[in-house]
Amino acid sequence: MTSDRPSIAVVPGDGIGPEVVEQALKVLAAACGEQAFDLTHYDLGAQHWLETGEVLDEETLAALARHDAIVLGAVGAAPGSSQVPSGLLERGLLLKLRFAFDQDVNLRPARLYPGVPTPLAPSVIDRGPIDFVVVREGTEGLYAGNGGTLRKGTAHEVATEVSVNTAFGVERVVRHAFDLAATRNNKVTLVHKHNVLVNAGGLWRRIVDQVAQDHPGVEHDYLHVDAATIMLVTDPQRFDVIVTDNLFGDIITDEAGAVTGGIGLAPSANINTAGDFPSMFEPVHGSAPDIAGRGIADPTAAISSMALLLRHLGRPADADRIDEAVSADIASNRSTPRSTGQIGDAIAAALS
Amino acid sequence: MTSDRPSIAVVPGDGIGPEVVEQALKVLAAACGEQAFDLTHYDLGAQHWLETGEVLDEETLAALARHDAIVLGAVGAAPGSSQVPSGLLERGLLLKLRFAFDQDVNLRPARLYPGVPTPLAPSVIDRGPIDFVVVREGTEGLYAGNGGTLRKGTAHEVATEVSVNTAFGVERVVRHAFDLAATRNNKVTLVHKHNVLVNAGGLWRRIVDQVAQDHPGVEHDYLHVDAATIMLVTDPQRFDVIVTDNLFGDIITDEAGAVTGGIGLAPSANINTAGDFPSMFEPVHGSAPDIAGRGIADPTAAISSMALLLRHLGRPADADRIDEAVSADIASNRSTPRSTGQIGDAIAAALS
Ligand SMILES: CC(C)[C@H](C(=O)O)[C@@H](O)C(=O)O
Ligand SMILES: CC(C)[C@H](C(=O)O)[C@@H](O)C(=O)O
Repeated sequence: MTSDRPSIAVVPGDGIGPEVVEQALKVLAAACGEQAFDLTHYDLGAQHWLETGEVLDEETLAALARHDAIVLGAVGAAPGSSQVPSGLLERGLLLKLRFAFDQDVNLRPARLYPGVPTPLAPSVIDRGPIDFVVVREGTEGLYAGNGGTLRKGTAHEVATEVSVNTAFGVERVVRHAFDLAATRNNKVTLVHKHNVLVNAGGLWRRIVDQVAQDHPGVEHDYLHVDAATIMLVTDPQRFDVIVTDNLFGDIITDEAGAVTGGIGLAPSANINTAGDFPSMFEPVHGSAPDIAGRGIADPTAAISSMALLLRHLGRPADADRIDEAVSADIASNRSTPRSTGQIGDAIAAALS
Repeated sequence: MTSDRPSIAVVPGDGIGPEVVEQALKVLAAACGEQAFDLTHYDLGAQHWLETGEVLDEETLAALARHDAIVLGAVGAAPGSSQVPSGLLERGLLLKLRFAFDQDVNLRPARLYPGVPTPLAPSVIDRGPIDFVVVREGTEGLYAGNGGTLRKGTAHEVATEVSVNTAFGVERVVRHAFDLAATRNNKVTLVHKHNVLVNAGGLWRRIVDQVAQDHPGVEHDYLHVDAATIMLVTDPQRFDVIVTDNLFGDIITDEAGAVTGGIGLAPSANINTAGDFPSMFEPVHGSAPDIAGRGIADPTAAISSMALLLRHLGRPADADRIDEAVSADIASNRSTPRSTGQIGDAIAAALS
């Protein structure tokens, strides 16, 4: 980009995406000033597809690649929508960006803020603070789009989905997880299902064991994904850093969001660790078509994602200020129902 | 079998398997009399493999096939065990039986008994009773054992896992789910991830839509698996019958077990709906090597599985009596810590 300000591509997307992104950008401006970043909006998603027949053309993809980072809202039409084929936007836009920009580390912090209502009982909550990070692999596994359908629509239909896992892909996220744990509580938990998925599970386990040797100060353990879903509700305090594959990461981060007060609060970063493409920052939640357009979506996850963005862009102090403003806002306002805009306004006001 | 009593194969397996099966058989005898069934024990699992080098030979498999039903405890060595290769017992014994005996419907009821401590907050629990059934497909998907490893142990390793799904396999479990819902609260929820796994997800959705046409009285909806893990902790009352694939079913039934008081209480049936092979009854929990041999495992899940067995063998009244005895036992004794044997004794005593 010509300007020396970092340039950010903004992809509001579908459903509540545009509503929460608006608040996220408001908070970003409040934290760093209106002029800190060069923002370029990209109008992509269900509406764009219906109007143009394009999900993401090559030119737009190339333009996005030139930014320093991407802010994304949410992508995807209503599950029952007959106008937009299933997976078209998810695979053609969201996953396309994660894959094309080699965003290998999908970072998803899960933290229960004091004062947030949680579906967990006091017997679980009272055991201590819940604060962990899921390092989800973002560029392979069952998300590779590798599968097919034979004899579609007949009684003899066969549909396959192939999970593709490479030593290259696994090692870089496992390294990231151990490095991260070394800055936190020195514990990595691998979540997989190696007793059934012996090939992929074997690869993940061996790489974790190898990488662990370079981190004698970090302990590591293992949970089958089914057992992990139990621990997330009975003993979430046991986790520091979880490392897992793309699909298991998708599943457990939604559950992690639920136990830490709802995915309305869960931010995420899709990091291109090699640094040759832009990283992307988005809330964990989806486009929530059922509540879209009503101004009731919680923008907190999108706002917290801006803290992840700032940390990635080398502005940790500003990132901390956003985290603190979010935390204070949650502590003082959780019992009052507020609109999307009111939440954004309150957090922005605390920052300026 | 030569006797006219139904013949049951008993496979206690590993870890806590033998401990809980002992109590399950005690309760079965109390409910139906010592002579009601012809029991044959099969000594299979980690120990058997270490001694003989065989997981399950063809002869034993053929012998098992001749029984009317199988009672299984749990299978699998400790995750960190270096003596038993990962997946050997799970794939060679447990999954082998499910697949060889075409146990297509893996039925997993989830019910929160009054008085059972749950990790969920009163705000969730107080909304109403939690009582649903997961119909998990048992013979295909990622459990097909279809995958491989290339360049193992090198920096260029590639490991694949293939999910195989057929119209034949999906339709029979979806039909089972709708039939079951028609005897309950008339609602089926398909859980999948069709926005990413478009091939397999497309197949599941189309079949659900087709089968639904034959059941105008049963409503149906859809949840992505990630959203389902949220609903299980925030609104488990929304479910009546869940139908899902093998891996998603594995994951959500453990979570369902956790929210309904722990997988120590969760029974399961692996039903061969065609009726040409024995069905198999087992607790949802695994072999729990960490607590094995200490007499502290909860045998309730294995005991409740006997109710599923009796219902399958056409003895619904006896099945109901076990369910009632379990329910009464839980209601009156949940606060007292009891040994495995004490729980079995109490439930058996209530039945005789
Ligand atoms: C929208 C969907 C494709 C996406 C995913 O499965 O990764 C979402 O659930 C997420 O977790 O970011
Ligand atoms: C032991 C394991 C192979 C098994 C499975 O994954 O099906 C278990 O978790 C279960 O749910 O019955």
